Amino acid sequence: MVHAPARPLAGAPPVRINLYSDTQTRPTAAMKEAMMRAELGDEQHGDDPTVHALCDRMAALMGKEAAMFLPSGTMCNVIAILTHCGKGDEVVAHETSHILHSEGGAHAAFTGVQIMPLKGARGMFSADDVRAAIRPKTRYAPPQRLLEVEQTANIGGGAVWPLAQLNAVAAVAHEQGWSTHMDGARLMNACIAAGIAPRDMVASYDSVWLDFTKGLGAPLGAVLCGSAEFIGAAWRWKQRLGGSMRQAGICAAACLHALDHHVDRLAEDHANAKALARGLSQIPGVVVEEPDTNLVFFDVKEAGVDAAAVQQRLLMQGVAVSGLGGRLRACTHLDVTAPMIEEAIGLIREAVAG
Amino acid sequence: MVHAPARPLAGAPPVRINLYSDTQTRPTAAMKEAMMRAELGDEQHGDDPTVHALCDRMAALMGKEAAMFLPSGTMCNVIAILTHCGKGDEVVAHETSHILHSEGGAHAAFTGVQIMPLKGARGMFSADDVRAAIRPKTRYAPPQRLLEVEQTANIGGGAVWPLAQLNAVAAVAHEQGWSTHMDGARLMNACIAAGIAPRDMVASYDSVWLDFTKGLGAPLGAVLCGSAEFIGAAWRWKQRLGGSMRQAGICAAACLHALDHHVDRLAEDHANAKALARGLSQIPGVVVEEPDTNLVFFDVKEAGVDAAAVQQRLLMQGVAVSGLGGRLRACTHLDVTAPMIEEAIGLIREAVAG
Amino acid sequence: MVHAPARPLAGAPPVRINLYSDTQTRPTAAMKEAMMRAELGDEQHGDDPTVHALCDRMAALMGKEAAMFLPSGTMCNVIAILTHCGKGDEVVAHETSHILHSEGGAHAAFTGVQIMPLKGARGMFSADDVRAAIRPKTRYAPPQRLLEVEQTANIGGGAVWPLAQLNAVAAVAHEQGWSTHMDGARLMNACIAAGIAPRDMVASYDSVWLDFTKGLGAPLGAVLCGSAEFIGAAWRWKQRLGGSMRQAGICAAACLHALDHHVDRLAEDHANAKALARGLSQIPGVVVEEPDTNLVFFDVKEAGVDAAAVQQRLLMQGVAVSGLGGRLRACTHLDVTAPMIEEAIGLIREAVAG
Amino acid sequence: MVHAPARPLAGAPPVRINLYSDTQTRPTAAMKEAMMRAELGDEQHGDDPTVHALCDRMAALMGKEAAMFLPSGTMCNVIAILTHCGKGDEVVAHETSHILHSEGGAHAAFTGVQIMPLKGARGMFSADDVRAAIRPKTRYAPPQRLLEVEQTANIGGGAVWPLAQLNAVAAVAHEQGWSTHMDGARLMNACIAAGIAPRDMVASYDSVWLDFTKGLGAPLGAVLCGSAEFIGAAWRWKQRLGGSMRQAGICAAACLHALDHHVDRLAEDHANAKALARGLSQIPGVVVEEPDTNLVFFDVKEAGVDAAAVQQRLLMQGVAVSGLGGRLRACTHLDVTAPMIEEAIGLIREAVAG
Repeated sequence: MVHAPARPLAGAPPVRINLYSDTQTRPTAAMKEAMMRAELGDEQHGDDPTVHALCDRMAALMGKEAAMFLPSGTMCNVIAILTHCGKGDEVVAHETSHILHSEGGAHAAFTGVQIMPLKGARGMFSADDVRAAIRPKTRYAPPQRLLEVEQTANIGGGAVWPLAQLNAVAAVAHEQGWSTHMDGARLMNACIAAGIAPRDMVASYDSVWLDFTKGLGAPLGAVLCGSAEFIGAAWRWKQRLGGSMRQAGICAAACLHALDHHVDRLAEDHANAKALARGLSQIPGVVVEEPDTNLVFFDVKEAGVDAAAVQQRLLMQGVAVSGLGGRLRACTHLDVTAPMIEEAIGLIREAVAG
Repeated sequence: MVHAPARPLAGAPPVRINLYSDTQTRPTAAMKEAMMRAELGDEQHGDDPTVHALCDRMAALMGKEAAMFLPSGTMCNVIAILTHCGKGDEVVAHETSHILHSEGGAHAAFTGVQIMPLKGARGMFSADDVRAAIRPKTRYAPPQRLLEVEQTANIGGGAVWPLAQLNAVAAVAHEQGWSTHMDGARLMNACIAAGIAPRDMVASYDSVWLDFTKGLGAPLGAVLCGSAEFIGAAWRWKQRLGGSMRQAGICAAACLHALDHHVDRLAEDHANAKALARGLSQIPGVVVEEPDTNLVFFDVKEAGVDAAAVQQRLLMQGVAVSGLGGRLRACTHLDVTAPMIEEAIGLIREAVAG
Repeated sequence: MVHAPARPLAGAPPVRINLYSDTQTRPTAAMKEAMMRAELGDEQHGDDPTVHALCDRMAALMGKEAAMFLPSGTMCNVIAILTHCGKGDEVVAHETSHILHSEGGAHAAFTGVQIMPLKGARGMFSADDVRAAIRPKTRYAPPQRLLEVEQTANIGGGAVWPLAQLNAVAAVAHEQGWSTHMDGARLMNACIAAGIAPRDMVASYDSVWLDFTKGLGAPLGAVLCGSAEFIGAAWRWKQRLGGSMRQAGICAAACLHALDHHVDRLAEDHANAKALARGLSQIPGVVVEEPDTNLVFFDVKEAGVDAAAVQQRLLMQGVAVSGLGGRLRACTHLDVTAPMIEEAIGLIREAVAG
Repeated sequence: MVHAPARPLAGAPPVRINLYSDTQTRPTAAMKEAMMRAELGDEQHGDDPTVHALCDRMAALMGKEAAMFLPSGTMCNVIAILTHCGKGDEVVAHETSHILHSEGGAHAAFTGVQIMPLKGARGMFSADDVRAAIRPKTRYAPPQRLLEVEQTANIGGGAVWPLAQLNAVAAVAHEQGWSTHMDGARLMNACIAAGIAPRDMVASYDSVWLDFTKGLGAPLGAVLCGSAEFIGAAWRWKQRLGGSMRQAGICAAACLHALDHHVDRLAEDHANAKALARGLSQIPGVVVEEPDTNLVFFDVKEAGVDAAAVQQRLLMQGVAVSGLGGRLRACTHLDVTAPMIEEAIGLIREAVAG
């Protein structure tokens, strides 16, 4: 359930239409100018004013007391689990979650937790699913400490958890004395698609992080938010993991710029994704999942063609998509325009035809 | 999926018919005499002749080069995973396996591995299930290193994996370069039930352990077997975990006695289990799973009665059974006789009737 | 700083005078009879009355609320550190301590703590040494959580920490909010030598364990004591590590017997050690450390002879001693008599002479 | 032994002369322009040309096969230990080393290794010291796998290990089958001071990293170098730790700029440090260590004044120095000029006088 990387193919032209991932956006000229102007200091000594500005703004946006700047979203997940849990504890999460499949087993390697995988359509589960996963309190069972959700759910098709469902599963967790954590890699996509403010969307979650390298277009960085006590404890792990940097404000400035300029425009990515899905659904043998946000999953099995072959034919035409299991995924973002979508539909049609 | 312990119930008489677990057998007088006669030495310095005799005998029985005496079966599993795997590796095992539910999250806490849970009826899976679980070799996915099976499958109803199936799933693992490990807590029950010699049953498994405290009736101890290199490496973990003992031959002597006297008689336990299942199947509203070995799982839901209530009523009559999820489990062993089975059927009938 | 094992030497006779280690005592006939008579149950379900009796007695003896039976002393140390500390914490201990040199790096491997090694003569340090080791409370330094002492100090020559010094170092730890843990492998030797009751000796320590396989002569087992809350938390680790056994009362009975019959007699071992030290001190070129308890360390360098050569010559005469670094160690115990001491002195004189 | 941070002091003016740490340099305008011009791609997919250029250049400079860009030097150390060692292994390093005192216990928390601390003046030890630390190969001792040195040795006063000594200690390690790792946070200072090319300086070390945020003046980043196999394995840990970034070339460009423009000029920092040491040595009661590179440690005890008081008085004058244990440390770098040194000497004289 992991992306097969779109490795350069011998003889392939440069990628013109990059639907591979929204992580591959390049910083805009305006974003780079903001980076140049940033006031800087020593971030790990608490002296970088731009990092402070970003953390303050994110804490306010998410309605949490505090926030922390980190080099990546994977580090946000690792630190959140380290801070919420101890060795031998159990985290309850969806069976398709990023922490289970795309972080190289980091949670087991570094935090010593076990993950109980829940089933459920489109990367989501219900309060009843959580209730059914509650273990007896005996010495034989690992103690359960944390519920984790992904908003949007990547392998779930970029699906947006309805707010009521987010709150319902969190309520069961809190009744049990567990903490709740949201992997918000693409949280802004969910908020824009649902028309819900971030602070409302994450109100039931004790910790949440946002990735700035996906649709938001920054070169690196993610921000983890939570209570002041949580972030205080998380700082120890940031230092130990080597996530403390120096004049990191130069990167935080890109994130501040993204909050100003790249959030509302996610609606365009969603419109492009819907247009792409519509176009693909008219290709014989292509089965498309209706996208909630900027990820379009489609299956070419019924067309009698191999997904990997389609992926390679597209690369020869300068179009990159990613493969997950048997499915293909096209991702819209800052560097993808409506005309590119039109062109991509045509090229995919040809690639499926063979 | 963990036993709810049969805690002493206020006002309950002593347990007369203990169907709670085969771990609760007491050493026989003959076994204790064997313990007294044992020649002893310092086990962790390699100087205990009785421990050596047990290890040599077990290695021969299992067709492996070497063996190691340990205080418990849980420690066998922990050490096997530590020896086969490194931090961040993945183990493929059934979703009902003991390592996932009954060892307190030890594999995550101490070994840093993640477990990929496979589905499948009666605690077993197929070679195709294993093939479907193979991950792409990328940096995002945890490296897969070990396939683990439980023979018999406890939560699977004491089910016996057919030899061909054991070999087929191991073959897929070995093709992938993974090691294979068998949790043989009740392996002898499987061998007796299937009429297959242990060395044949475990031939495809790189490591295997047998618990002596279950149907075999010893007070403590389990033996882990594998290649000389594997056992050599495992000794480091035994020392670190505090599994190295001193004049442990006094306990190993009980295990040697059990190999001589308590293996063939497991057939009686299986006959008693079948008689119990037959009897229970005639109680209205009781759904019984046909037992392969000495574990009889039954469900009282259709009788409109709560499993926990039945368990408590039985305790008031001096009969102990265990509860797992919604099901009840009755276990036959050395201290359970055919007349007790007859009596238990009658008492269960009454308890279900209410 | 680890014992070089007294491996069987080609051509050597059986060991007649075993000064190698007090871990190599064999259970007496009376001890084995006590084991046979023991009332048994399932220890990990809290149903073994003999294990309960041992734990209750040990808790009372040590003046703690609760106690736990374990297969080894190494497991006591591992569990105590797991229970007192989290990953990345620091333990302050003597630079010659057992946890640093003789447990295979277990504390780092399983508990994730770092040990700050303190210097000091005879395995002991002072309150000022502890004060000097206090780290600033910054994110760069590992948080300090536990002070650990060894009573008696093995590599320190079996030295007995004076009670006032034990209390003084513990007071600094408690001022800092650290817990205190005593590795009491040979605690009873210290209590007998100092004429101090165990509960007084360990009053400043939050956890303490006693090994029953050393001078006390049991085949296996150690008991860890502490508050009810500490032992409750420790049970999770016991289960995870595979330290939970079944009818373990058969071994606990040996420990109860040892408390009745093998404690006061440790004074004989100490007298034998003093006699041995006196005898050795009269051998030209042998430098002996005055023993506090049952361990006699001596150095043969000034005699112009290699320690390993002396050890081997002694083995050829049926006498086993152990080697630690350049020093030799002779250990008195239950199986060593005054006449053996006299004979050993003569044989060591010859072995040194060459 | 950890820096007490130069926290803003109530009422203190802004810091004009920052001798606190070379980590607090700000990127120059030229460096920022280089960042803006950088060609970018997705670093964790192997597609960032600027990251590639930096890694290629660093591998060549260090004479190693491969290199990896990381967000910090602490992460370089964590990954190097994870890659060279397994759980329960031992690393041999100086008792003042960064990994022991300034990474929050990360090596214990994440890698499960124990560190054996060696003594020796100025943060260095000899081949004989290493030989004396070799443990017997028994199950009781942790297996030794790695020798680690710091070049320059920070707490050792910024001391430069002589090349012959570096090679001699590495030779003992390699004889034992251990790997060798160099924490080269300030390696370029050592190379410039000694007039030795980096590839010669690190030739005996299997892995080495350079920090770009110290004297080299980049906002974030460090590069770890080693064999192709080592870096291949290290990539798994980079991914798991969250050290994989996206368009990281924007930061790598600053490092490339530093290699072009900020290496040779370290000689100025060293000259400034020598001038500072000379000036301080003429202040009555101040004891200065002769600096090898850019760190000047001095002691004010003999002046009858408290180090912390001196540090605070200096802050009130706009001068920042750091405190380590009882000593004070002044660090020269890119943002410190010769006139500032002259002024600082005068202000320190006044602060010591009180």
